[in-house]
Amino acid sequence: MTSRVATAISIPFTEWVDANAERFIERLKEAVAIPSISGDSARRDDVFNMAHWLDGQLKSLGVDTKLVDLGTQNVDGKEIPLPPALLGQIGDFTSEAGKKKKTILIYGHFDVQPASKSDGWDSDPFVLTTVGDKLVGRGSTDDKGPILGWLNVLQYHHDNQKELPVNLKFCFEGMEESGSEGLDDLIVKEAKGYFAGVDYVCISDNYWLNDRTPVLTYGLRGLCYFSVTVSGPAWDLHSGVFGGTVYEPMTDLVTLLSKLVDNKGKILIPGVVDRVPSVTSEEIKLYEKLDYSIADIDKAVGAPIALSSDKVEVLMGRMRNPSLSLHGIEGAFSGEGAKTVIPAKVSGKFSIRLVPDQDPKEINKLVKVYLESEFAKLNSKSKLEVKPLSDGKPWVADYKNPNYEAARVATLLVYGKEPDFTREGGSIPVTLTFSDALGVNVLLLPMGRGDDGAHSTNEKLNRSNFIEGTKLLGLYLYEIGASINIDPKY
Amino acid sequence: MTSRVATAISIPFTEWVDANAERFIERLKEAVAIPSISGDSARRDDVFNMAHWLDGQLKSLGVDTKLVDLGTQNVDGKEIPLPPALLGQIGDFTSEAGKKKKTILIYGHFDVQPASKSDGWDSDPFVLTTVGDKLVGRGSTDDKGPILGWLNVLQYHHDNQKELPVNLKFCFEGMEESGSEGLDDLIVKEAKGYFAGVDYVCISDNYWLNDRTPVLTYGLRGLCYFSVTVSGPAWDLHSGVFGGTVYEPMTDLVTLLSKLVDNKGKILIPGVVDRVPSVTSEEIKLYEKLDYSIADIDKAVGAPIALSSDKVEVLMGRMRNPSLSLHGIEGAFSGEGAKTVIPAKVSGKFSIRLVPDQDPKEINKLVKVYLESEFAKLNSKSKLEVKPLSDGKPWVADYKNPNYEAARVATLLVYGKEPDFTREGGSIPVTLTFSDALGVNVLLLPMGRGDDGAHSTNEKLNRSNFIEGTKLLGLYLYEIGASINIDPKY
Ligand SMILES: [Zn+2]
Ligand SMILES: [Zn+2]
Ligand SMILES: [Zn+2]
Ligand SMILES: [Zn+2]
Repeated sequence: MTSRVATAISIPFTEWVDANAERFIERLKEAVAIPSISGDSARRDDVFNMAHWLDGQLKSLGVDTKLVDLGTQNVDGKEIPLPPALLGQIGDFTSEAGKKKKTILIYGHFDVQPASKSDGWDSDPFVLTTVGDKLVGRGSTDDKGPILGWLNVLQYHHDNQKELPVNLKFCFEGMEESGSEGLDDLIVKEAKGYFAGVDYVCISDNYWLNDRTPVLTYGLRGLCYFSVTVSGPAWDLHSGVFGGTVYEPMTDLVTLLSKLVDNKGKILIPGVVDRVPSVTSEEIKLYEKLDYSIADIDKAVGAPIALSSDKVEVLMGRMRNPSLSLHGIEGAFSGEGAKTVIPAKVSGKFSIRLVPDQDPKEINKLVKVYLESEFAKLNSKSKLEVKPLSDGKPWVADYKNPNYEAARVATLLVYGKEPDFTREGGSIPVTLTFSDALGVNVLLLPMGRGDDGAHSTNEKLNRSNFIEGTKLLGLYLYEIGASINIDPKY
Repeated sequence: MTSRVATAISIPFTEWVDANAERFIERLKEAVAIPSISGDSARRDDVFNMAHWLDGQLKSLGVDTKLVDLGTQNVDGKEIPLPPALLGQIGDFTSEAGKKKKTILIYGHFDVQPASKSDGWDSDPFVLTTVGDKLVGRGSTDDKGPILGWLNVLQYHHDNQKELPVNLKFCFEGMEESGSEGLDDLIVKEAKGYFAGVDYVCISDNYWLNDRTPVLTYGLRGLCYFSVTVSGPAWDLHSGVFGGTVYEPMTDLVTLLSKLVDNKGKILIPGVVDRVPSVTSEEIKLYEKLDYSIADIDKAVGAPIALSSDKVEVLMGRMRNPSLSLHGIEGAFSGEGAKTVIPAKVSGKFSIRLVPDQDPKEINKLVKVYLESEFAKLNSKSKLEVKPLSDGKPWVADYKNPNYEAARVATLLVYGKEPDFTREGGSIPVTLTFSDALGVNVLLLPMGRGDDGAHSTNEKLNRSNFIEGTKLLGLYLYEIGASINIDPKY
């Protein structure tokens, strides 16, 4: 289908956005200047400052807001206050005409990852710095840029006294980079309260697959994270004195870790992949269509180490197949140089990325049973403990839903090409919470590119992505607005 | 054989030692109060202070000393001065009668391991604290106590104007706990200079096998320490995005580590144990005689994890067989909790303890060839590098040499029982340097007990070991002195 949005709407809007670009970049500069690092308790005040700054912006644009206290958090034995969630709404929720409008819930997070110049940044991470087309700064792309994209859209309607094509609700949090503490409870609690009447959810907090082609993301992998601990002596031993006299936990642990996955990525734990559906030829066509190449992965990882020379296989490895990665070992010698220790207690850390229809509870059980039976074969005098550290279900949305269709058409309008429909290998847990608690379609509509370096040094958002992205968010709302009377099954 | 030392000598000496015990403990207190931690460059001045304190003590007892500059050491890119070696001699090296005397070279180290109360010490580690029979403090047993044992012996001869039964040379260093930097060169250089004419070497820097029975130690294992590095991506990756798409270095590394040794201690690298002689029935009798039990090892490691319930097998595992221990992994996630990283470059650390006739150079080659061939089988796109980090040859002395015989009889005189003849599982590299450079018999004559906790918190030396140990060192010299005209092959 094609756009239902009249050029009478889209042209003035996009031209206005272009004309106001510098002003938007100035506002992003203000936002980036607040070092709202949720993972550093010394910066907690700045996360609060950021909440209040954003609250002020929303209020000035006519949004009815409230800051919701989420309680406290235990950091190193001390209770410190959690930053508030920021809820807001704008639109006409009462009149008959207003009630006919679709209501979109927009999620974003205003906290950022840690950053300091000494990590290797080329410029102060909290001073937005223009380098060619790049706007460099912590939070530029994750996730202040996208949040400000929404503010830009509101600014257009505010400054030009235009009515919004939809009703909007906002849910912004300040703890995303630190496990979204407190948010799930709030969402579940407000599902039939503050969030009642929401038709669609839109989250702009992920990235294109490359630096060329916009994407809509309709799936995320789940995660089961494990710690497998082998322990023996009551304390670390000297390998000179005790090497050759006792069972050493490290020996058993590396044996167990070597039995989880082969180096081609095949998971060796019986039953774990049983619920993963075989790939269909229709699905293969989906991956063939994506704008991606082996050169893209080589560039992204800096070495020619892809598991396959077939782009479709690599994409399926990331998007629709489970994977198992070994992350490290806690309790063993991990420093530089040489230390002749026999570690007393070592914990291997590994995780499995899950896809439908894998179930974390079942995976946890299968892993435990397997490791225990492999350990039994070793006839060791050491002790084994298998502990699931965290788990999250995979998520896949119906990408034929009007929510996606609106975003697809808006993309075509702004970028002049079809978006790629992707699934992400990682997880954004809040997606699943919204999907389950509200029972509506959730759209992941990224603003930034695959090379933005969200959690790295020199994080950036391309200026063009910020500006075109603002247009995309706005036109997505108009497309939704125009779909009021459209049968969701068109 | 029995003692050749007249009771006219041994009784006045041992009675004098008992009468002066408090004074000796006071001196140990002074020595322990100087925090001569060689591994902490901030404490380098204290290592110098300790060298000067010891120099002053030796001079006051009539020893002719010199401090030898060993140059500088590179610490974090900064050159800092190495503490000097302290050489000394006392005796009659010129007259005909004097030249007939045996010359013993005594080695010890005046630096200590790091220690601070916050590590879990019950008392200030640098305040010698009496707890029952224990003298608790850093360096009490490793190695200030033994050095002060020699001072005590000199004190008897000085205060009572007694002639020493032998000529003595001393070699004390301040870098033992940090790799004995600079010492090997000095020993090799002075082998035919300052150390010319040395008949025997005596080192008191190891421990009894238990807390009951004195030992003489005639063997040490050697060591080959390896780092095996597997690398792939140019930087760490996120397992959500890249899990299932690339070769992961950790997967290959744990596979390689799992192929080095089984959990019963059997080394799986072809050729590595080929040069280890089969055990003889005579040898088994040696181990049967040792005062040791499975209960001792259970106590030493705090858990019932011995590889065998047969004491002889466990002792041979420690003393006369090679062993391979996995120490840890550098570059992988090693913290608490969960981190979903695919580490870009991981280095497994392991070492092999060597026994005669294993040769470090040959072992290095065998390990490299084996790991490279096992890695080739994996068909990985990651890269492998095998690096030997350090190596040292094993050492075994002739325990029927008069040097050992003198120490055996002295032990019998002081403790009323035969010493156990042991080999150590660890290494004291300077032993081999003396043995090779001087070409004389080296005796390891420990003062402390197996539970002294040399490198641990609450390091201690039993008061009785300090005092009886002083007697042992003195009577050992008298036994050597009395053996002048004895055929070394008696
Ligand atoms: Zn984010
Ligand atoms: Zn993030
Ligand atoms: Zn020592
Ligand atoms: Zn030591």
